[in-house]
Amino acid sequence: MRPSRRKPDEMRAIGFERGVSKHAEGSCLVKFGDTHILCTASLEERVPPWLRNSGRGWVTAEYGMLPRSTGDRMRREASSGKQGGRTLEIQRLIGRSLRAVVDLEALGEVQITVDCDVLQADGGTRTASITGGFIALHDCLAWMEVRSMTSVSKVLKDHVAAISCGLHDGEPVLDLDYLEDSAAGTDANFVMTGKGGIVEIQGTAEGEPFTDEQFSELMKLARKGIGRLVELQKMAIG
Amino acid sequence: MRPSRRKPDEMRAIGFERGVSKHAEGSCLVKFGDTHILCTASLEERVPPWLRNSGRGWVTAEYGMLPRSTGDRMRREASSGKQGGRTLEIQRLIGRSLRAVVDLEALGEVQITVDCDVLQADGGTRTASITGGFIALHDCLAWMEVRSMTSVSKVLKDHVAAISCGLHDGEPVLDLDYLEDSAAGTDANFVMTGKGGIVEIQGTAEGEPFTDEQFSELMKLARKGIGRLVELQKMAIG
Amino acid sequence: MRPSRRKPDEMRAIGFERGVSKHAEGSCLVKFGDTHILCTASLEERVPPWLRNSGRGWVTAEYGMLPRSTGDRMRREASSGKQGGRTLEIQRLIGRSLRAVVDLEALGEVQITVDCDVLQADGGTRTASITGGFIALHDCLAWMEVRSMTSVSKVLKDHVAAISCGLHDGEPVLDLDYLEDSAAGTDANFVMTGKGGIVEIQGTAEGEPFTDEQFSELMKLARKGIGRLVELQKMAIG
Amino acid sequence: MRPSRRKPDEMRAIGFERGVSKHAEGSCLVKFGDTHILCTASLEERVPPWLRNSGRGWVTAEYGMLPRSTGDRMRREASSGKQGGRTLEIQRLIGRSLRAVVDLEALGEVQITVDCDVLQADGGTRTASITGGFIALHDCLAWMEVRSMTSVSKVLKDHVAAISCGLHDGEPVLDLDYLEDSAAGTDANFVMTGKGGIVEIQGTAEGEPFTDEQFSELMKLARKGIGRLVELQKMAIG
Amino acid sequence: MRPSRRKPDEMRAIGFERGVSKHAEGSCLVKFGDTHILCTASLEERVPPWLRNSGRGWVTAEYGMLPRSTGDRMRREASSGKQGGRTLEIQRLIGRSLRAVVDLEALGEVQITVDCDVLQADGGTRTASITGGFIALHDCLAWMEVRSMTSVSKVLKDHVAAISCGLHDGEPVLDLDYLEDSAAGTDANFVMTGKGGIVEIQGTAEGEPFTDEQFSELMKLARKGIGRLVELQKMAIG
Amino acid sequence: MRPSRRKPDEMRAIGFERGVSKHAEGSCLVKFGDTHILCTASLEERVPPWLRNSGRGWVTAEYGMLPRSTGDRMRREASSGKQGGRTLEIQRLIGRSLRAVVDLEALGEVQITVDCDVLQADGGTRTASITGGFIALHDCLAWMEVRSMTSVSKVLKDHVAAISCGLHDGEPVLDLDYLEDSAAGTDANFVMTGKGGIVEIQGTAEGEPFTDEQFSELMKLARKGIGRLVELQKMAIG
Repeated sequence: MRPSRRKPDEMRAIGFERGVSKHAEGSCLVKFGDTHILCTASLEERVPPWLRNSGRGWVTAEYGMLPRSTGDRMRREASSGKQGGRTLEIQRLIGRSLRAVVDLEALGEVQITVDCDVLQADGGTRTASITGGFIALHDCLAWMEVRSMTSVSKVLKDHVAAISCGLHDGEPVLDLDYLEDSAAGTDANFVMTGKGGIVEIQGTAEGEPFTDEQFSELMKLARKGIGRLVELQKMAIG
Repeated sequence: MRPSRRKPDEMRAIGFERGVSKHAEGSCLVKFGDTHILCTASLEERVPPWLRNSGRGWVTAEYGMLPRSTGDRMRREASSGKQGGRTLEIQRLIGRSLRAVVDLEALGEVQITVDCDVLQADGGTRTASITGGFIALHDCLAWMEVRSMTSVSKVLKDHVAAISCGLHDGEPVLDLDYLEDSAAGTDANFVMTGKGGIVEIQGTAEGEPFTDEQFSELMKLARKGIGRLVELQKMAIG
Repeated sequence: MRPSRRKPDEMRAIGFERGVSKHAEGSCLVKFGDTHILCTASLEERVPPWLRNSGRGWVTAEYGMLPRSTGDRMRREASSGKQGGRTLEIQRLIGRSLRAVVDLEALGEVQITVDCDVLQADGGTRTASITGGFIALHDCLAWMEVRSMTSVSKVLKDHVAAISCGLHDGEPVLDLDYLEDSAAGTDANFVMTGKGGIVEIQGTAEGEPFTDEQFSELMKLARKGIGRLVELQKMAIG
Repeated sequence: MRPSRRKPDEMRAIGFERGVSKHAEGSCLVKFGDTHILCTASLEERVPPWLRNSGRGWVTAEYGMLPRSTGDRMRREASSGKQGGRTLEIQRLIGRSLRAVVDLEALGEVQITVDCDVLQADGGTRTASITGGFIALHDCLAWMEVRSMTSVSKVLKDHVAAISCGLHDGEPVLDLDYLEDSAAGTDANFVMTGKGGIVEIQGTAEGEPFTDEQFSELMKLARKGIGRLVELQKMAIG
Repeated sequence: MRPSRRKPDEMRAIGFERGVSKHAEGSCLVKFGDTHILCTASLEERVPPWLRNSGRGWVTAEYGMLPRSTGDRMRREASSGKQGGRTLEIQRLIGRSLRAVVDLEALGEVQITVDCDVLQADGGTRTASITGGFIALHDCLAWMEVRSMTSVSKVLKDHVAAISCGLHDGEPVLDLDYLEDSAAGTDANFVMTGKGGIVEIQGTAEGEPFTDEQFSELMKLARKGIGRLVELQKMAIG
Repeated sequence: MRPSRRKPDEMRAIGFERGVSKHAEGSCLVKFGDTHILCTASLEERVPPWLRNSGRGWVTAEYGMLPRSTGDRMRREASSGKQGGRTLEIQRLIGRSLRAVVDLEALGEVQITVDCDVLQADGGTRTASITGGFIALHDCLAWMEVRSMTSVSKVLKDHVAAISCGLHDGEPVLDLDYLEDSAAGTDANFVMTGKGGIVEIQGTAEGEPFTDEQFSELMKLARKGIGRLVELQKMAIG
């Protein structure tokens, strides 16, 4: 039995609350169980230097955790003077994942920054950020469409969502919470599109190395979970 | 007529939602209209170096704004590598204000850190942080009391709350939102206790200098507003 | 009896030495008793980005303390890699106070930076910085007037000076030195113009909260002190 | 035909030069074609704080690129004041991969730091770092064994090596050089042990998402390459 | 004729004003013409880590320039977030020079930090810092002697002073001011003891390389100047 | 007998390996015995701001040590967040020395950055960097000449090389290795041109001050050593 008493292929309660920010062009408070992340998508006119006058746009992401989003209070990164390696790694992953379904040419020369701020953490913050960040991005594009600045359907080529899997006592389980993540021998994150294409795979053996077969099973679970997440995204966006 | 169409002595809708964090010993989502701040109080065993082995404790505060809590996206302070002057100034003010009603001797040699993170900003974030931070601090002490670590009534000497006032077209008005704050000729923040003692006064002429009489009127308005805030705090804490 | 044996409304010996810098357009070594601050005003052609091509100028301030200006040697901020919260707070206050008497339109699109460096500290460094910084600013404008770049009387709308007050054993006293400041229950800084307008008020209860009446008395003392400082400024400028 | 004119499953010329540092306890200059990395393993007595008095040791890695290891000169990270996200991500990966084959209990309470400094880059620096870093780590342990500080065979549980694969024009190819990496639609890095266990998988779609089948083929290629690398490691260590 | 119209071997007016700081154990405002530097010597009980429990002490120096000590206002190093290369180079030189005449064993396990802050710069700030820093150091030791903490004559083995020389139009001249320094083809700094021993030589060709003979002449001039500086130090200390 | 058993005027084995970098326009792996430094010269089109549109170019240098180039592993400067004082001092010296033989006008408005990275240190890294950096610089200019961008003979006015000397047990010795440097009472670095002009002299008494005569002897030794280094440079360049 996994610690959360969920079935091996059972995800936590997933929630998407849209329009939670008065200011952001798109926003979504995403919940994977007790993991709560505020995602905002901000439209900016300036693009990175290497895209100036290229006619192409950019989508990027930033990630942060509130100091007491975790069991023990963490030092505020603004106060320690830099973003740690884990933060930088996660925000690079979120950005890559979202760009995988965006036609940057069709977006035009603007930048959309998706901020994912963890209000409460209980495992799986990077996968929830990608999944909720997609909604915020979608709503930002919808905001632009209303203003005749772009067309959502031309820019967004597909849905994208992400989920974690792991081996618990050797058994593959879906959507690890913090306790399960700490106990898991192997931890893998998958990012896939609505059509089933794989965007990113990250698998790490925490203890013993794992086998091809084990990895295949994790991938199957992930495919199932992401399929469900994309359905929920579609219901949320309406 | 003030921009918000409120009466001169009318505050925005005030809300305190307690227990919003799974992890923090005390927490409060405070709303002053569209200004929303997540306050958490974290109990830590270590105290600042100058208090070690003194038997006395410490209460401190940190303040941050999510990048898109504002109309235009701000650069993330963790990414710029330091906390700006405004941030440092505000968190020093919150800490001083909360300590004004705490008996540090009675608290014992522990530290409580109150984090005030602005999810959405619409003016008055520092005063809302103090007012909501007090609730988070209270609930942290209550958490400790249940564990026989302290007694709320011995540590907390009084309530503390804060409000802003300003001159709009020469007329004194209470609880400025962002638009009113931008338009106000003079802006003042007041921190007072439940018994009416003054803890902190900060008044700034943005344009023309102001007079003793004008300042007296602002102080009267503030006293009224803070009286109401303390009532609401009492109702929230129950 | 206050520690300095001064009468409650007696200020320390005040001195302004002008023209102490070979390089700066305006300079003043200001002394409030043993508090000695070197103020220089530097004219620069570049203005902050948000004023470019606006025709308007800017006045800003920076503040620093020499490492051994204090009783114990402090770590050099250049070596610790950042300016602390207190430093940033003070330099923002100095800048706001000086701008309160400057017509930025009339100044034209240039920037004047007033550096206030504490050579020796004995309490009241921020109020001495404002009071002496005004002289340096004045002399910088006079330097410009001689070169037909501006007119002092058009740019400077009024005098500005600042003083601290506090409650010592419950009694309001004027112009606290370091010992008095440490002992004071309440500490307040006032910035006012030559015509008596209030530019900034900052009052903080260090121990017990204070009352409206106590604050009124501090304000009266401050008004008296600032009146005297403005007289001394006029005598210094000649 | 792939840009390097190599066969799809053909690796570049691999070289391990041991003992290249007069000072380091273990060292290896590893070459994957034109990618040249100097790996040193340094024995230190201090361990990270969370391991103090635990009897367990630690293996960690740091990664850097010389400014002109690349086609265009890069800014020196020491001069820009921080390590970038890519650097931090890579050194975390190297550390995790090496620890996967180390019995930290058997190592005892010491720390080994493996520095991987890229003298010349032509793609695949992270996989070469892991593969060469293993040799440096081995030699450091051998140095310790000679001094009766540990036993190589007890500490090192297995070999570990890494290789990149990618899709070039849809065809899976092994060990990408810089040009191939830039052109590849999908890029994946694999870390495996001598016994064939998987330690880490990182697959990223640069353009189009990829399928399960494509990923399986990349994994097969990687398994072949890593098998060959482990043979070469064994020959090098003798 | 050199720009300053001084004779080739003529130094600027030299002044030492002792006891200028209310707080520092030793202090000296040193003037080499228009170069004015405030030197303070601060006694601290803590020594650098490598000297703990060694019974030996340490003398170190820090150097800074006020932002408008120069013709154009420089950015404050505290605000730019680090000390520049020139600053670090100079403070290392001052520290080495002062330590050359100190018996660290006889000093005992304390640290003296000599801060040299340039109030006004006109060339030769590093040599004036050494020469004036010696006085501050002496007075700090005298302060300690009065309190029976040490004996000046046991700790200070000799005097130390410094001067710059240069080639102006091929002619060797002593004690360059800023204009002369900018125009000089070669610039050299010499640090020597009262007994004539050489502590440090730094010679740099700004334009054309120089010859052995030229360098010999500079050294002769320096010896003369330093002899005079040591006499003045002796008169100042009395 | 000096620790290295070399004769007083005997240098270590000197080696220059050219063309060691696939990417850099010029490169040289220089060896002074066990001191090994990788020097690369990189051509960049951008010049420092103060040279824009001046028609003049710039030559600058950067210096770094690999963490385990030394006996004990040093902290990586990129990780500590800044370059230390010693690093900045050395790279300023290398840059000045190389510029002494470059006609910046003839170079034209480009910048050449010479990176000197210490792979293995055994004393004398700064002098080896200058001597090897000259070869890298030369080869970069030759690379440009082949592309008709410049003429080596017009830009390079002379050779430049550097060597250290010191007093070992009072005897002057040439080219100190690390052990000798640690034991030497006095340590001096000399930079001279092929024609014998002096570019830079830095002499420091580590213990006892030194005399004019001793310094003269060091200079004679240096002259001999640099003469030999320039011969070797000429043989290397061919």
